Order: sequence, then structure tokens, then C-alpha cells
Amino acid sequence: MKYPKGIKPRPKGPISRNRTPDGKVKYGSRGMTLEKDLDQTNAYYLETGRAVIHKKPTPVQIVNVDYPSRRKAKIDEAYFKVPSTSDYNGIYRGRYIDFEAKETRNDKRFPFINIHEHQVDHMRRCHEQGGIVFIIIKFSLYDETYLMPIGHFLPFWEAFLEGGRKSIRYTDIKDASLLLKQGINPRISYLDAVDEFYFENGE
Amino acid sequence: MKYPKGIKPRPKGPISRNRTPDGKVKYGSRGMTLEKDLDQTNAYYLETGRAVIHKKPTPVQIVNVDYPSRRKAKIDEAYFKVPSTSDYNGIYRGRYIDFEAKETRNDKRFPFINIHEHQVDHMRRCHEQGGIVFIIIKFSLYDETYLMPIGHFLPFWEAFLEGGRKSIRYTDIKDASLLLKQGINPRISYLDAVDEFYFENGE
Repeated sequence: MKYPKGIKPRPKGPISRNRTPDGKVKYGSRGMTLEKDLDQTNAYYLETGRAVIHKKPTPVQIVNVDYPSRRKAKIDEAYFKVPSTSDYNGIYRGRYIDFEAKETRNDKRFPFINIHEHQVDHMRRCHEQGGIVFIIIKFSLYDETYLMPIGHFLPFWEAFLEGGRKSIRYTDIKDASLLLKQGINPRISYLDAVDEFYFENGE
Repeated sequence: MKYPKGIKPRPKGPISRNRTPDGKVKYGSRGMTLEKDLDQTNAYYLETGRAVIHKKPTPVQIVNVDYPSRRKAKIDEAYFKVPSTSDYNGIYRGRYIDFEAKETRNDKRFPFINIHEHQVDHMRRCHEQGGIVFIIIKFSLYDETYLMPIGHFLPFWEAFLEGGRKSIRYTDIKDASLLLKQGINPRISYLDAVDEFYFENGE
């Protein structure tokens, strides 16, 4: 089975292991900071009863399971599958919420190579059904994280599918997104931006 | 790592492989019929634009990944994790929908051993947030499948946690649930029951 684009094995252990001894970010660790920050944020939202939002497990095709003892099951052959939905979903203020989160080290643009077509199709469907749907995009070099509503993202994506730009410019994202406040707890308070865009604007 | 209760490795191949040559249902195949029927049903609902509902991937703790070639990644050590949410969720008629599906070969009761406490806690939270939440329970021997709204399920669960019955009687499920119509396409039209219970009753 081919190794699907954009899927990398999950690194283990704390963030400090994501850097080599000379301080460079290890290849396999790219994108982990945003994921960990969102995990912490979602745990905080869950504890405080504000929302129920979870990251979906990484989809894996299990081929063989070994039973070294009666109570143990070890998967000894499995492969990563291309995800057919976005990574995060749940419920907030009675509404269905669905999003994908991506991090890039590019300083000028967000390349579409980071997103699977299946995921965008899924998000479009959820959007059409009346869900709250967006993409969280982090520019690591600036330490800036944006929430881009799917309705603002889709025109760029359609243009790309018709042979246009293979990325969205940083400046275009800035114009069409909400900059997320970062803190200690929660680390990325993205629901404040959801309140602002989806509830106070009356969309 | 211990092999969590209720989680069995996924059997491979078509339904016919679920039986031994003398027609007995193989141990590892229990519960697969309902899962396959729901997969087909959800695919049908997706194609027809009625709802966007997916089964979540099986949660797996990936310990080691091998790269036999540049484009291949083989997971050669992983373990099943206890799920922290229910298996199915999505959006229907603008509402968040969340459910768990379980099959039993018991003819008199549905044993709670089939359900994890984390999953019930998750469903309770989604219910409190205003989601449409239920459990689909199939009695294989009768070929009957029921949709039990979480509000009807919780009293039995609470009693169990306080030392009461470790199961719900078949007759109690019959009284507190909607019997699901089975067909060819979709195989289990559970959204008709959702319409009836959550929309027409005005709950």
C-alpha cells in the first residue's frame, strides 16, 4: 500500500523530543504543536462543559493481529489509510461543528498539498447541511493561527481544482480568516472566534 | 497493554467468511453484520444527501512504523485503545447526531459489558449539549434492531452503576425503543426513526 500524502507516523513522547540536539525540528514532528494545542484546548472545553469536540483516531487498515497471550492483542501489520473526513468534529451551542487543522512552515502561502480532496468534499457536505465548518491554519514561523470559514476557503479550492494556484497566499488567508487568540488555558481559544463569526454575525 | 473489554480485532473479508464450514458464526465475526449494514446505510444517506454520518476509525496506539521503501509505511507494532467516544457521529437536518451500535446474541437481555463507561459519558455530554443521541441495539437471534434514545437508556445505566442489573431486559428495550425497518437500500433506515422520535414529537 502506498503511503498517502500528508500522513506521517505520529511521533511519540513530549514536545521536547521533536527537536534534534542542535535544536532543529525533526521531520516527523512537523505539525505536532498545533495538534497538541488543540487536544489541550478540546480537553479544556470538555471539562468546562463548553463543547464536546474530539479528534478522530488516525484511520488505519489492520491486516494482522497477533495474540501473544489471552489478554493481549498486538497489531503487527497495519497501514495508514487516506482519511475520508476531517479530523475534528463535535457539538457546540447545539450545533454540529467540523474542522480540519493544518500547520505549515511556509512563510508566504498555505499549500493545498496539506489537504485531501476527500476531506474538503466532506467539509463541503457538512457546510451544506448547516454545520459550522472551518479550517484552522497555523503559520509556524509567525506563530499565528487562523480560523478560515469553509465558505471563504472553497473559492480558492475550486480555482485550484480548475487548474489555478496550488496554494492560498498568506495575505489572502489573513484577509479571509479570524486570527486566534493564544493563551495558557485554553491554548487556542477557537470557540471565541466561532462565537464571533457564526453566532454574533448571525450567519 | 491489556486487551480492552468489548474490542475484538476486525475480521476481514465478506460476510460469508463469518461462518465456519458447518455454519456456525465465528467468534471474531460477532457484531459485524450490524456494522456492515450501518456502513451501507450511511453511504446511502451520504449519496442521497440526506445526512453526513460516519463511523469513526478504530482507535489504535501506534508504537512502531517501519519503512521498507520510501513510499511505504508499515505499522508493525500497535495496540487497540479503549474508545473515548461513541463510534458514529455526524449531522442530520442541521442537528448534531451521535450514536453507538451494538449487537448481541443474547435472547433475553442486552448486557452492559458491551458498552464502555467512557462512551456513555460521552453520549450523556452530547445529549446535554442538545444533540440527537441514541444507541442502536440488535438482537441477532430475532433479527430485530432497536433505536433506544439515550434519555431512555440512562436510567438503566445509572441503576447498573449503583449496583443494579448488569443488563437491560429485551422486553424493557422493546418498550423504550423504536423498532427499525430493515430493507435493501438503506438496510437499516434509522433516520426514519430519528424523524419520528426527535422531530415529529417535537422533543
